[in-house]
Amino acid sequence: MTEERRKVQAALGVADDLASLVGGTLEGCGTTEITGVQMLEDAQPGDLTFVGDAQYAKRWGDSKATVALVNRQLDLGDWDRTTRAVLWVDDADHAMIAVLERLEGMDRDSGSDDAGISPSAIVDPDARVGEGVSIGPNAVVEAGCSIGSRARIGANVILESGVHIDEDAVLHAQVVVRWNCRIGARTILHSGVVVGSDGFGYRPAPDGSGIRKIPHRGNVVIGSDVEIGANTCIDRGKFGATSIGDSTKIDNLCQIGHNVRLGRMVMISGLSGIAGTTTVGDGTLIGGSSGLADHLKIGRECQIAARSGVMNDIPDGETWGGFPAKEIRQALKEQAVLRKLPEWSKRLKKLMS
Amino acid sequence: MTEERRKVQAALGVADDLASLVGGTLEGCGTTEITGVQMLEDAQPGDLTFVGDAQYAKRWGDSKATVALVNRQLDLGDWDRTTRAVLWVDDADHAMIAVLERLEGMDRDSGSDDAGISPSAIVDPDARVGEGVSIGPNAVVEAGCSIGSRARIGANVILESGVHIDEDAVLHAQVVVRWNCRIGARTILHSGVVVGSDGFGYRPAPDGSGIRKIPHRGNVVIGSDVEIGANTCIDRGKFGATSIGDSTKIDNLCQIGHNVRLGRMVMISGLSGIAGTTTVGDGTLIGGSSGLADHLKIGRECQIAARSGVMNDIPDGETWGGFPAKEIRQALKEQAVLRKLPEWSKRLKKLMS
Amino acid sequence: MTEERRKVQAALGVADDLASLVGGTLEGCGTTEITGVQMLEDAQPGDLTFVGDAQYAKRWGDSKATVALVNRQLDLGDWDRTTRAVLWVDDADHAMIAVLERLEGMDRDSGSDDAGISPSAIVDPDARVGEGVSIGPNAVVEAGCSIGSRARIGANVILESGVHIDEDAVLHAQVVVRWNCRIGARTILHSGVVVGSDGFGYRPAPDGSGIRKIPHRGNVVIGSDVEIGANTCIDRGKFGATSIGDSTKIDNLCQIGHNVRLGRMVMISGLSGIAGTTTVGDGTLIGGSSGLADHLKIGRECQIAARSGVMNDIPDGETWGGFPAKEIRQALKEQAVLRKLPEWSKRLKKLMS
Repeated sequence: MTEERRKVQAALGVADDLASLVGGTLEGCGTTEITGVQMLEDAQPGDLTFVGDAQYAKRWGDSKATVALVNRQLDLGDWDRTTRAVLWVDDADHAMIAVLERLEGMDRDSGSDDAGISPSAIVDPDARVGEGVSIGPNAVVEAGCSIGSRARIGANVILESGVHIDEDAVLHAQVVVRWNCRIGARTILHSGVVVGSDGFGYRPAPDGSGIRKIPHRGNVVIGSDVEIGANTCIDRGKFGATSIGDSTKIDNLCQIGHNVRLGRMVMISGLSGIAGTTTVGDGTLIGGSSGLADHLKIGRECQIAARSGVMNDIPDGETWGGFPAKEIRQALKEQAVLRKLPEWSKRLKKLMS
Repeated sequence: MTEERRKVQAALGVADDLASLVGGTLEGCGTTEITGVQMLEDAQPGDLTFVGDAQYAKRWGDSKATVALVNRQLDLGDWDRTTRAVLWVDDADHAMIAVLERLEGMDRDSGSDDAGISPSAIVDPDARVGEGVSIGPNAVVEAGCSIGSRARIGANVILESGVHIDEDAVLHAQVVVRWNCRIGARTILHSGVVVGSDGFGYRPAPDGSGIRKIPHRGNVVIGSDVEIGANTCIDRGKFGATSIGDSTKIDNLCQIGHNVRLGRMVMISGLSGIAGTTTVGDGTLIGGSSGLADHLKIGRECQIAARSGVMNDIPDGETWGGFPAKEIRQALKEQAVLRKLPEWSKRLKKLMS
Repeated sequence: MTEERRKVQAALGVADDLASLVGGTLEGCGTTEITGVQMLEDAQPGDLTFVGDAQYAKRWGDSKATVALVNRQLDLGDWDRTTRAVLWVDDADHAMIAVLERLEGMDRDSGSDDAGISPSAIVDPDARVGEGVSIGPNAVVEAGCSIGSRARIGANVILESGVHIDEDAVLHAQVVVRWNCRIGARTILHSGVVVGSDGFGYRPAPDGSGIRKIPHRGNVVIGSDVEIGANTCIDRGKFGATSIGDSTKIDNLCQIGHNVRLGRMVMISGLSGIAGTTTVGDGTLIGGSSGLADHLKIGRECQIAARSGVMNDIPDGETWGGFPAKEIRQALKEQAVLRKLPEWSKRLKKLMS
């Protein structure tokens, strides 16, 4: 048994142990040991899997998985109850999350055993480093930085001068946080995130000779319990802050412009961009590959469909979509009529002739 | 007073000192010291702020800011003229930029005081390094590189063999410039930029067995006074150069394909992509999240609206938008009719029946 | 003659030598030495170039290039046959690729001469490193990693614990591969690629207090002969793998969500995103700036046009486009009718009145 399987076994035990965790009813062998978690088609003996719909249910009999979390109404056909086990649950998806959460803490990502400062990290003597902080190989922490207790700074991370990292924050390998920016408690920045680059601001040179860069002397202030996806960029304010509210989650490869203000619990899916000085209210959801123009005011609890191009303010609680984005019912009606136009066109041409 | 506030105070002085810089008329206390620059809602005593519209004007009275740049026509209501000051100006936005420009040079970003080569940087003995160059921790400079005077190479930057960096260029932390590429004078590359990765070019293998990679042996040549945003990628030419003209500005997370040729003073907003071998003329503006197909010829002084998908050449001076992109008036007319179609559809159906 | 030109000369020889390589017919001086490869407008004496159309053909006479690969049907006008040479070929594009392929192996990118582990690389004693592997400066290889023979790991690359790299893989500078992920033989990861970041998955906290992160304990499994473009991100599975099939090619700045499954020889152009758990069949092509919603099943040998927003499953072999994406003929018909609507609208309004 591999080290990984040994750790999973220690965390999850046998099928019987999981029944109460997932609120499930056991059928089959309660003493089968669980040593892994895997998709049905890739599962090996020892693996726990989940069966969420009829397609998966058909394949349970032939699967090598040892235990399954199965939605109560499904029909599994024949299977060997002497060595395998099923936990019947109301929602296999949620049951699996409960299992994954129990596994949290066993892996490297949550371990505090590696706390400590790598000998190859370059930490300015003027930086304040809290208790239990880990700083990875070749990381750079410049003068005037402060790092809260138990924060974990990955390999090659760069913290420029005056950066403040709150306790229990996690900065994965290769993150850059530029000067004077602030990261809240328990916030997670994934690899390649750039916080505090200059905004995209220029003006014609007074002598007409070209384009002049507008200095960006503000910063970025990120709240607590935020998560920022890999290679996402958040520009610093021209002056004042670009700010990201508590519990907001941003996916990979997003662009957040200078002086943008995101509220709490905003969710932004991948490859989306928000232009300078736009504000987004608490609890608003933004679908993938969307764009918001600059200087907009987007309300609270709005929903913006994937691939929207928002050119106007959106009132609280509304759902918008399309480009230029509009209230979603109007956008869907336009799509529906457009779909019929090709078949209408011959008759329309005749009418107009 | 913090070190930062001391530096701002030294640079900006008192309200009276700024009147001529911003072309403003002083009202209130001319001897109030300015120790920071901040947005109205976040301002603390000592801060300078700006009041650009009636919304801001209403909040000046209750703000903690000490000095404001205010557009001449606005009504500020009551405020304390004995300790606070207003500088009435024609354009508060431009006045603020003048203030920010005066602050340039006081911060780490413009400092030459840190010039020097970090002991942890790995610089090949065969590389030529000019006077006053700074090279950050863990940066790698391979054989055959040359770096012009006063250029600043950030932490963890990788310059592969034969790279040429002109004087006063700034490469922020974590930039990669691959072999034989050239970066012009005063050009700024933000963190995470990749210059000179291979283009996306393949062809069927001659023996029908799969896909064969086309070697990319060209390079990237970036002019002077260019700025490239964080995590933007510029692919090297298949042979010959991908070239970026002087004073061109590219925002974060853009993709510039192999053998693309951008003219001078081109501006490209975030999350835009330009496919291989397309050329873009001087002074053309490209809105965010736009895409240009390959092998196109885009003229000079064109404007391409945000979220455009350009599939055709564009003549000089034209404004295009939409997808597939077309002349903007046609694109806007299509949007306008589309908006009315849902209400027309019932009547149209009756007519056609 | 520069070192570079000497190497090109050694690889390509004189015009006469290339005739059989490119299947061409020589005209002019067969003994002219080739010391570079360049676009027509930038070529210097000694350079080989290509002339693929009538526009290029007109400029051959005045060009400084010494040798050209020219499509057979073109008219070159007057040129000096005593010092210059033309190789008439069926397809100048393909001929040029043959030349570029002959040059492969002469440059740093393919050299095995620099094999070896940089003294500044940090390689865990528990990692297994094959024969002829090169590991660049400041790279980090954690415990439990294994690296196959002749793999090349660039500067600043981070391989977290338990990562497996197969033989002859190439990871360019600044790549991050997070724990337990697997990279196949001969696969190329360009600079800034992040493999194995957490997927974008959350659920309401059971106590209603906010948003809870779903742990991601799966991994990423990338096949052999894959190429992944600069700054592209591939999220790890929630459990089980995100998997990328053999010979699949992904361009720069793409986002591949958790538990996505891409088949063999899939091609994805830049700035595209694929949301969680979607599968894509073998040989499917996805145009730039496209987005695929989550949990979709895209067939084999499909074509998805650039800027598509795919919201539905696509059967094998179909071509789709637009947003919401639909079969391409329907999408093009809608575009065509839409284009006519503005001129129709006046007459339609009259009919309806």
